[in-house]
Parts: sequence; C-alpha cells; structure tokens
Amino acid sequence: MSYARFQTEIARINDIICAINLLAWDSRTMMPPGGVDARGHQVATLTALARDMATGDSLRRAMDGAREELAQAPKGDIRLRALAQAEAEIGILSRIPARIIEDMAGLKTRAHSAWVAARAANDFAGFAPLLDRMMAMQREVSAAIGGGAHPYDPMVGQFEPGMTLAELRGLYDRLKTALVPLIQRATAAPQPRVDFLTQDFAIAQQKAFGLKIAQRMGYDLQRGRLDDTVHPFEISFTRDDVRITSRFREAWAPGGIFALWHEAGHGMYEQGVDPVHTRTIFTTDLVNLYGVAGASFGMHESQSRMWENRVGRSQRFWELHFGEFRDHFPDQLRGVEATDVWRAVNRVNPGFIRVEADELTYDMHIILRSEIEAALMAGDLAVADLPAAWAEKMRDYLGLEVPNDTLGVLQDVHWSHGYVGSFPTYTLGNIMSSQLFARAQQVPGIVAGLQAGDYGPLHGWLTENVYRHGRSSSPQETLQRVTSGGLDPAPYIADLTAKVLALTA
Amino acid sequence: MSYARFQTEIARINDIICAINLLAWDSRTMMPPGGVDARGHQVATLTALARDMATGDSLRRAMDGAREELAQAPKGDIRLRALAQAEAEIGILSRIPARIIEDMAGLKTRAHSAWVAARAANDFAGFAPLLDRMMAMQREVSAAIGGGAHPYDPMVGQFEPGMTLAELRGLYDRLKTALVPLIQRATAAPQPRVDFLTQDFAIAQQKAFGLKIAQRMGYDLQRGRLDDTVHPFEISFTRDDVRITSRFREAWAPGGIFALWHEAGHGMYEQGVDPVHTRTIFTTDLVNLYGVAGASFGMHESQSRMWENRVGRSQRFWELHFGEFRDHFPDQLRGVEATDVWRAVNRVNPGFIRVEADELTYDMHIILRSEIEAALMAGDLAVADLPAAWAEKMRDYLGLEVPNDTLGVLQDVHWSHGYVGSFPTYTLGNIMSSQLFARAQQVPGIVAGLQAGDYGPLHGWLTENVYRHGRSSSPQETLQRVTSGGLDPAPYIADLTAKVLALTA
Repeated sequence: MSYARFQTEIARINDIICAINLLAWDSRTMMPPGGVDARGHQVATLTALARDMATGDSLRRAMDGAREELAQAPKGDIRLRALAQAEAEIGILSRIPARIIEDMAGLKTRAHSAWVAARAANDFAGFAPLLDRMMAMQREVSAAIGGGAHPYDPMVGQFEPGMTLAELRGLYDRLKTALVPLIQRATAAPQPRVDFLTQDFAIAQQKAFGLKIAQRMGYDLQRGRLDDTVHPFEISFTRDDVRITSRFREAWAPGGIFALWHEAGHGMYEQGVDPVHTRTIFTTDLVNLYGVAGASFGMHESQSRMWENRVGRSQRFWELHFGEFRDHFPDQLRGVEATDVWRAVNRVNPGFIRVEADELTYDMHIILRSEIEAALMAGDLAVADLPAAWAEKMRDYLGLEVPNDTLGVLQDVHWSHGYVGSFPTYTLGNIMSSQLFARAQQVPGIVAGLQAGDYGPLHGWLTENVYRHGRSSSPQETLQRVTSGGLDPAPYIADLTAKVLALTA
Repeated sequence: MSYARFQTEIARINDIICAINLLAWDSRTMMPPGGVDARGHQVATLTALARDMATGDSLRRAMDGAREELAQAPKGDIRLRALAQAEAEIGILSRIPARIIEDMAGLKTRAHSAWVAARAANDFAGFAPLLDRMMAMQREVSAAIGGGAHPYDPMVGQFEPGMTLAELRGLYDRLKTALVPLIQRATAAPQPRVDFLTQDFAIAQQKAFGLKIAQRMGYDLQRGRLDDTVHPFEISFTRDDVRITSRFREAWAPGGIFALWHEAGHGMYEQGVDPVHTRTIFTTDLVNLYGVAGASFGMHESQSRMWENRVGRSQRFWELHFGEFRDHFPDQLRGVEATDVWRAVNRVNPGFIRVEADELTYDMHIILRSEIEAALMAGDLAVADLPAAWAEKMRDYLGLEVPNDTLGVLQDVHWSHGYVGSFPTYTLGNIMSSQLFARAQQVPGIVAGLQAGDYGPLHGWLTENVYRHGRSSSPQETLQRVTSGGLDPAPYIADLTAKVLALTA
C-alpha cells in the first residue's frame, strides 16, 4: 500500500518532469522568439512543483511506510533499490535551497536566449553577465550539496555519481600521455582528401540517408522524431517519445549525419529501457529534475559514442554503406570510394569546435573545459577572463589561435543551460564506449553482424545488458556486470591507437 | 498582500495551464504516434494539479483575504472583477468531481488518437466506444454543474457563459428563415467557375502567400508560428507565444489559406490582449483549465470569422490582393481575374465538410451538430444511432446523401477533444462578427483602410475595443460597450443577403 503510494507519487513527478522536458525541447526547436519570458515562468513553476513533491511530506511518509512494509523483503529486492535511489537523490535535491532551483529555472531560459544571440553576434559581453550569475549560483549549489574535496566534485557528481576532480585528473593524464603522440603521428602523415565532402549536400538527402541508417541501428521513429537545432541534443518524455535533433550544413555532410547517429545512440538507450520502469524512479533523475532512463550522463554518452564512433566511423561501416550514401549524392561522390569516406570522416585535424572535433582531439576539448570549469568553481578564474584562458589552453593543447568567441567560449550550449560539471562525462563516455564495445565483440554473433551491416545483435546485446536496466543499475555496477571491472581507459586508447595505425599504414 | 498572493497563485496556475496547452499543441502537431499513452498521463497529472490549486485552500484563503483588503475599493475596481471572475469559475470547476476531470484528461488523448485512426480508416465503430464514454462523462459533468433547464445548457455555458438551448433555438429559427431562401437563390443562379482553383498549388507557396497577408492583417510571427494539422486550430501560451495551424491541400488552394486567416484571427485576439493581463485570471479559463485571452468561445470565433469572411471573402480584398496571389501562382492563374477568385471563394455549394463549407451553408452544419449534441446529452439519441441521425439531418438541411462517416460524423475533432457544447459558439461568432464589423465600419478611417488594403485601422480598433480586454469583459459587456445592444443576428443576415445579391446580380 505504501510502496504503491510511493510509485504513484514518483509517477506524477515523472509526468511533471516530462512536461518540463517538453517545454525545454520546444523552446529549443519550435518556440517563437517572443515566447522566451513566459516559458521561463512556466519552467520555473513546474520545476518548483516537482521539487516540492519530491522533497515533500507526502512522498516522505509513503517512503517511510514502504520501508516498513518491505522489512522482510530480500536484500536484492528491486523495490528496496528504488527506495534507496529515491532517498539518495532526494537527499541531494533537499540540500539545494528551493530559491536557487527556482531562480535557476528562470535563468536557464534567459541565459539560453542570451547565448543564442551572443553566439550569432560573436558578443561574449552580451552573455557574460548571465554566465556570471549562473556560475555564482553553481558555487552556491556546490556548497549546499557539499561533501567534495574540491568545489567541482559535487557538480560532477550530479551527472556522474561518485566521480571527482582528482579521479578525472588521473584519467586525463593517462589520456594526454597516450593521445599526444597519436595526434602527432596522425597529423604528420599524408592527409586524406576531404574536398568531396565540402560540396553542396542537400539537407533533405542528408536526413534521409542518416535516418535510414539510424533506423537500421535500432532508433524507432514510431517513438521518435528528428528536428534541427543550433546544438544537437536528445530528450525523452518516457521511452515512447524520444526525440533527437541535429545540425545540418550543406557544405559539410558528415557534421549533421554523425551528430544524428550520435543522438540516435542516446535515443536508443532511452527507447530501450524496460517498459516496467516507465514513470518510476528508474527513469526519473530527481537530482536534475530530468526525465531520463540512462544510468548516468557518462553511461549515456558511451552509447552515443559507440554508435557514432565505434560503429559509424569504422572501416567496415563505410564499405557496407558507401553505396547507399552515393545513391543519395551521385554527383558529389562521383569517383569517390568507400575508403575515401572512411579516411575523410576520421581525419585528424585539430580545430576550434568541440562537436566537430575528430576522435583523437575531442578529449582535449573536454580536458580544457573541465579545467576551466574547475577553476571557475574554485574562484581561480573570473568570467571576464574566460576568453583569454580559453585561448591559452587552445594554444597549449591543440596549437590553435582562437579567432573569436563564437569559435571559442561561446560554442557550447551547456553553461547557458545550467550544466556545469557535465563535460567530463563526454570523455567518461568515450572510455566506457570502448570498454563495452570490447566486451560486445567477444559475444557470438555481434562481430558477424557488424561485418554484415546487421546491427540487431549489437543493439540486442546493449538492450539486454545496458538499456533495459535504465537507472536501476549504476554505471559502476553496469561496468562490473558487463566487463568484470571498473573504469579503465585502456580499451579506448587501444581503439584509437589501432585506428591511427590503420589510417597511417 | 492577500491580493498579491491571489495574483501569484493564479500566475502559477496559468503557467501549468499553458504547459497543458503546449502538451496539447505538441500532441496534435509534433508527437510521434508511440507517445500517446504517456502524454495522456502527463496531461492528466498537470490537469489535476491545476484543478487542485484552483479549488484549494491556499487560493481560497488568499481570495478571502483579498476581499477584506479591498473592502473600501470602488465598485468598478478591476481587482474586484478579477476576484468575482475567479470565484464564479472556481464555483463551476468545484462542482465537477476531480475524478471526472482526471479521467477526462486521459480520455481526451486516447479519444483523439482513436478519432484520427477512425477518420483515416472510415471506421466509426473504432471511435464509437470512446465517444460513448466521452458522452457518458459529459452527462455527468452536466448534472454536476447543474442549473440548466436542459442538460445541454451547462455544456454550452462552459464555452459561452449564460447561453441556453432555448435561446439558441430562437436564433437558429431566425437564421433558418433567412438562410434557406438565400441558399436557394444562390444555388439556382449560374455557378461561378472554380476549375482554376483545383489545380496543383504548391503548399509552400500557399503558406507564403497566406502568411504574408496574415502578417499584414496583424498576426505577429515573432510571437507565433504556423504548422500543419488534420484539423486547424489556434492555441496560446501567453500573448507572446500564439500558434496557429492549417490544413493545406495542393488540389484546393482556398481551403488552407482561408483556414490560415481564420486561425490568424483567433491568434490576433490572443496576441492583442494587454500585457498587464498576462498570467492573470483575465487570460486564464479556470472552467476549461485552458490558457486563453478571449472573452468566450463565441467572441473568439467572431474574430476568426471577421478576418476570414468579412475581410478575406470581400470583393475589395481580392481586387487588392489578386495580383500578389497570381505572383505566387502565375501558371495556375493565367487568364483569371480578381472577380473570378472572389466569386469562386464565395461559391454557395452545399457540401459534407463543415470546415470547407461556404458562409451560407455553414450555419446549417452547426444547427445539425447542436441538435445532435442536445439529443445525445438528453439521452434521446444513442452513439450507435449517430451516423443515421447525421445522414437524416444532412438530407433535411442541405439535401445531401452522406457517403461515409469520414465525410460525416467523423469529420470534427471536437468530441474527441471533450468539447461538447462548443459548436453553437461558431454560429454565435458569425452573428457577433457582423455586429462588430457593422460598428467598425462607422468608425472614421476603417473603411478607407479596408479599401486601401491597410488593415491597421481595423486591427487597432479591434485591439482597443475587444482584444486588449482579454477576459476582463464578458461577451455581453463587450457587445453592449461596442454596439450599445445585445446579441442580434440582423447584421449577419444583412451581410449574407448583400453578398448573395452581389454574387447573383
């Protein structure tokens, strides 16, 4: 009875949170410019309601009663797990003052609009006051959550439970050590031709090709849709409505298509959760008041990266699908071969834009952002000094001079959206994608499927081992169950090394 | 202090209701088919929350306190008006059991999907069980609200406060008496050519032309957008985000374009409300838990009809805009003249589809539906007998044999959406559109503007006299203020008579 009441309360919170997700999706895809202020109010009100319900007496009493009710339940009972998970998330949520959460909801909407305008006008000063306010609020959040050795730790922990700046620094050091010589080897080698990908690629055809492959990977359009946005993203309102966006450019076909497969990877995770978890705590992130089935942001990213990079950038993938790609663009791809596309989409080319970075340099963009975020959180760096700090690190890590803020500090949506501490999850996702993919390749049928362009076996294995569990397994538990170990960058470094060797052979 | 608390509570309720509006808009424009069940839960939960807040103790206490606070306020104080309006709407809402409202929210979403499928498959039996449940629920609602001489009265009163079946019958009798001979005269006269409008009209060009004119009328795309749906509608999430949809067909250009202007008329009403009313009771319909600025459904319809018919179907309008129309479709309109378009879009042609009906026969569709709804509410007609009843009335009123249910009882979205009693407001809108337009034409500058294609004077006058007030004036008060009288079909009958005389001259 009490457990059922707990479930009902969580289901209602999930409904509100999914409505907030829709308000967010709409504001980034459909909303006319005039709607921004009203939308801020709407998000703030629903966020406050969800928070009040999550931290309120009614849910508290239901949980206390449910724990008594389940006093005799075996230790592994999923209901105990549900209660413990709700307890932990509500604990973090309760420590953040309601005032901050309400202010944040309104600030996010305004900051996002300011960011869109600033980015278009290359006007960092137009965004800086809002970013400054956002960072001040984030420092308050960090102090309120507490428990970290560094003010950055509680921020990262919201997205990747248990992760710390100290552990990140260790992982980053191993990656830098391995990646720097690989980047050098790749950039010193003869460069592949990319000219044929910079022609006029009709966006409708890019979408048609990209979506056809995404559906074959396993993304279900009966429960999804694709739209255009400045910054690609995936968002769900239960497993039965999981939407993706991409950013297509006529003059550079791979950008939009690979972003589509990236977001479809996120989407398959959400669509693959067991229906039994719908509207439960296992598809509800109470810390972020976000409707999501993924175990953590890092685990989520492991799936986007797997489909985008481990699958989509493999040599075999282009041997299989080049013909279809050429059918969509016969004029542009005249005289081009599968291997040319494979080489081109794996070209190592240090650049300014994270979302367009190649696999080898991508993590350098993350390391840069992580270090800047940590410094902002610690108060070691002022928002006004951000463009200079960005420029310096781009010089140090990738040898590039940043020409303007649109290509620098204004390129990412995250800070405007109140996400500080989420960037490291991209690199954690890269690491985990290789760990899971290495294990998958030992499973009978998966390699044969990938060789034949049949993605069913991989998708099925991921559904069984990752997707269906939703948030009922932590990332650590998932890694342990699947790989019999913890976080380990070795398979990722091995994948990148093998790729560079193949490309430069 | 208490009044401010009242305002804050209403603002939060408005935020939730606007989020419900967005969930509804999305489910009819963007949502993938799989999302329907989850969407039903989301709408039901938010609807229950809005209702709980509207009927709850916190708002009640704020209102009681506010009334004391304003004991010395002058009688016409807008704050007293706000409190009285909230009181009246909460009264109706409170009388409807929460259980019905929650069930209704879920049922609406399912019924809408069943209707879409049934309509596409011409399968009334697939929709009938849901419609039967909807009607049973509506009878419960009627009994709960109470106060009517006929069970249909409380239903109509939800949309048009104070309106009754008895009054409607009186208006309908006057209309039938006037319209039947007009329809006979028009159909007996030589028919205009319409062949040139049934060619291949590219939908993108229809939209471009339609939107250009709608913007000139006064619809603001910075605070709006246009999408495609099966059944055109307008919906707002505050005055700053007012969206319209239309249904375009390549083979019949006027359908989509006039529906666009119709919905733009609704949209201008919402966009024109004074910003001071944003997130107040004067833009919040607590009876229908619907975010809307219009004084009533009938007054709202008066604005869509005015821009669609009084303006868009006038002879002068096509003299002014035919050139632009032809610029968008030079091949299709070769050898056609302005007067041909004017005659074609006013062709009197009894047909099956209400939304495509000409002005002369339109009200017959409404009278048919009103009578069927009243009979269903009184229990005089069973859902299973509906197609037969529909066929009989189409025969009696328009002399037509209904070939199938898609062209008959399945054509309208309303019942699937839980709107029973709203159809009469379309005819009330027609009547009021002519009353208001007759008055407008006496105002200096408006006729000159219409003659010159400058819609600013009419739009400005409507904004000043109707739009800006939102729900702070009732339809009766608005009519009294503007026309110094009450509901009167004479100007509408005069407009239609003049039109038929001009067309058959």
